[in-house]
Amino acid sequence: VRELARIVGDGYVLAGDASAYLEDASRAQGLRGRADAVVLPGSPEEAAAVVAWCYDHDVAIVPRGGGTGYAGGAVPLDGGVVLSLERLGRVRSLDPGLWRMEAEAGVTTATVRRRAREEGLLFPVDPGAAESSQLGGNVATNAGGPHCFKHGVTRAWVTGVEAVLAPGELVRVGGPLRKDVAGYDLTGLLCGSEGTLGVVTSVWLRLIPAPETSLPVIASFGDARAGQAGLEAVLASGVVPSAIDFLDAGALAAAGREGAGFALICDVEGHAAWVERDRDELVHALSDAGALEVEAPADGREVWRWREGVSIAVTARRGGKVSEDVAVPLDRLADAVEETVEIGARHRLEACSWGHAGDGNLHSTFLLTPGDAAELERAEAAAEELFAMAVRLGGTVSGEHGLGWLKRGQLARQWPPAALDAHRAIKRALDPKGLLNPGKKVA
Amino acid sequence: VRELARIVGDGYVLAGDASAYLEDASRAQGLRGRADAVVLPGSPEEAAAVVAWCYDHDVAIVPRGGGTGYAGGAVPLDGGVVLSLERLGRVRSLDPGLWRMEAEAGVTTATVRRRAREEGLLFPVDPGAAESSQLGGNVATNAGGPHCFKHGVTRAWVTGVEAVLAPGELVRVGGPLRKDVAGYDLTGLLCGSEGTLGVVTSVWLRLIPAPETSLPVIASFGDARAGQAGLEAVLASGVVPSAIDFLDAGALAAAGREGAGFALICDVEGHAAWVERDRDELVHALSDAGALEVEAPADGREVWRWREGVSIAVTARRGGKVSEDVAVPLDRLADAVEETVEIGARHRLEACSWGHAGDGNLHSTFLLTPGDAAELERAEAAAEELFAMAVRLGGTVSGEHGLGWLKRGQLARQWPPAALDAHRAIKRALDPKGLLNPGKKVA
Repeated sequence: VRELARIVGDGYVLAGDASAYLEDASRAQGLRGRADAVVLPGSPEEAAAVVAWCYDHDVAIVPRGGGTGYAGGAVPLDGGVVLSLERLGRVRSLDPGLWRMEAEAGVTTATVRRRAREEGLLFPVDPGAAESSQLGGNVATNAGGPHCFKHGVTRAWVTGVEAVLAPGELVRVGGPLRKDVAGYDLTGLLCGSEGTLGVVTSVWLRLIPAPETSLPVIASFGDARAGQAGLEAVLASGVVPSAIDFLDAGALAAAGREGAGFALICDVEGHAAWVERDRDELVHALSDAGALEVEAPADGREVWRWREGVSIAVTARRGGKVSEDVAVPLDRLADAVEETVEIGARHRLEACSWGHAGDGNLHSTFLLTPGDAAELERAEAAAEELFAMAVRLGGTVSGEHGLGWLKRGQLARQWPPAALDAHRAIKRALDPKGLLNPGKKVA
Repeated sequence: VRELARIVGDGYVLAGDASAYLEDASRAQGLRGRADAVVLPGSPEEAAAVVAWCYDHDVAIVPRGGGTGYAGGAVPLDGGVVLSLERLGRVRSLDPGLWRMEAEAGVTTATVRRRAREEGLLFPVDPGAAESSQLGGNVATNAGGPHCFKHGVTRAWVTGVEAVLAPGELVRVGGPLRKDVAGYDLTGLLCGSEGTLGVVTSVWLRLIPAPETSLPVIASFGDARAGQAGLEAVLASGVVPSAIDFLDAGALAAAGREGAGFALICDVEGHAAWVERDRDELVHALSDAGALEVEAPADGREVWRWREGVSIAVTARRGGKVSEDVAVPLDRLADAVEETVEIGARHRLEACSWGHAGDGNLHSTFLLTPGDAAELERAEAAAEELFAMAVRLGGTVSGEHGLGWLKRGQLARQWPPAALDAHRAIKRALDPKGLLNPGKKVA
């Protein structure tokens, strides 16, 4: 503590029991860590010096953004230093005319989006908890969100990073550059590496002009099977929605629409004069595909606020939940939605799912009574079946949240041994001492 | 040869002097390789067996697609086996309703685009030489092209790969999956790795609905400085063109427009009814920005055919050229265009540039008389200054073509030592014997 305080200043080394830094959004699973110290560097150079000190003293480093993850990726497991990037909160540059921004790791996602929007631009990545989640964490998890259906996930928007690599070197690769194939894709490798290959301190983003307007379309169906037909009808329409989300019956009930079987929520965006035509095409496509009801409100804000609240509404149902984020080829969405409920039933758990239909990405969820250890155990067994299902359907154990700690080892379900070897070799290559977020994203 | 023939069949092991396999499109620089054998596997399993045999016998493996590269990446430097993927030519699946395709490494880029287009879909990556270049090579170089301005380069369209990793294991990572953050981004790491980390045998692609139509806008300016203002006016217009290419005075002269100073070629795409409005907005923006002339022909095919022919037209001027593909932040485009000519003048070489203005990506070129060794030497010295300039302007030594052999070592100009160490560590991790395309993409 004394030596680290010399790097960052006395006020910025907190005791290891600083509780705000010991858990993430996956609280239901009872994961709570233990740290020796929490360090808050005030500059990238200080962050590099902290990593260097830790690497030199064989101390584990757990990088931390907003703590909004669902996989325990930012939770310190067994001591070491939590390295919180929250003080790196500066938007270093914003060039509206050149569609680009550089922002430090601690800038919240909401701030990135707001600053872009104020200049008529869009940063389209929209994970949940945007007011708390931070850009560095978005990069570390390669975060997604509803509107990534059209626009792609975080990786698609990052043109360069400043990062601390082992054993404590601050490097910049890429920059305000839209194309660069000179080196291996180190920027891309850091995206989604969950703090296990390096610590992102600043990010170059590209942006696009904000669409003039967007309009939602909500279609309800009798069940997931009918919803699948609706989803495929949307794709066949030729319109490219910016988002195609869904809620199944259980999620709809939790969110106040008891009795409905399945809903698709689409968004279309573009010039004000034209977006109505796209919207109308979607309405027709969904009606023709057998939707029971298609709504097309004039303003999407309420719909998306409601959609954003689904996770909290589902939690409120019983007080707790275990929620996973599997993804499958989008033609297997209904299979995955139905199997989620069946798996829950086999373990005597109420289950539901919602998420990003167009990306085949489900938040498959089992409801829990907090503190009921037997139920939690059943939910964990159910989650294992969920991962097996995702892989059997040709999918992945994680579409958005990453492996973190809670899904350690699950990659072995979906990758062959030689690819797992490559995963491990990359980790050893960039973190030979295994001190960067140890125990996380383990193949 | 005998043992390799046992794997792929007698007719598919060619002698090492099979001349079609010993050079690429960078002939001007006199690069011609030497191989011990050229092997043409007929299946991914055969490709894996060939790699395994080579890895076991310490024989270098030089993966090869269409041989259309400009950096010598597919040229065998010092013996070993050229592994040509050309017989892996199957489109394994095409699901138009689900916007996806799986195609083997040897399928030409033109075939991928045509098959998509026949189903009303678009594979937007459009590197030059699409009739010859192959999908595996597109992935290995993370190929670009004019329309990557809007749509992004190859990486953005690849959702999974089948590849042979050292020491000869066939793996599949990703798939028909639009989101997957379970493992490190091995798919992305293979993109642009130029055959030095693995051999891509098949690729999962996502596609999008083809735009109904597209319209070009061509604006001419007095010089590059004025053209820069035009480029920035396009960005400020709020329209997102699908392409913003440019030609400088020298490239225009070579392409038959003697006397013109600088030209921007934009493309806008979308619904037939709406694309005209975008086109008109661009015409106004470019006129207001001081364009000398703005043309808006009703059909873009002729314009883009003309644009596609620029490289050949420039070569025809003197019979040869040395052409590099630096990229800079797009606000430095005019600086880079002007400096290209100045660098040429310092070395008594006629110079010009053209390329992808919106991505700040120049094909900076020095004209040569074939066989004039002194001129070639001056051109190589000039190219060194070009790379230094790109890095000084905040750019990269390669926006599209990669390092290959010709730009070996140039990464050290733009990456700090710790990032170069990471580049080397990744190579060692995935190719411990250094047999995958040795000497290429060296930091």
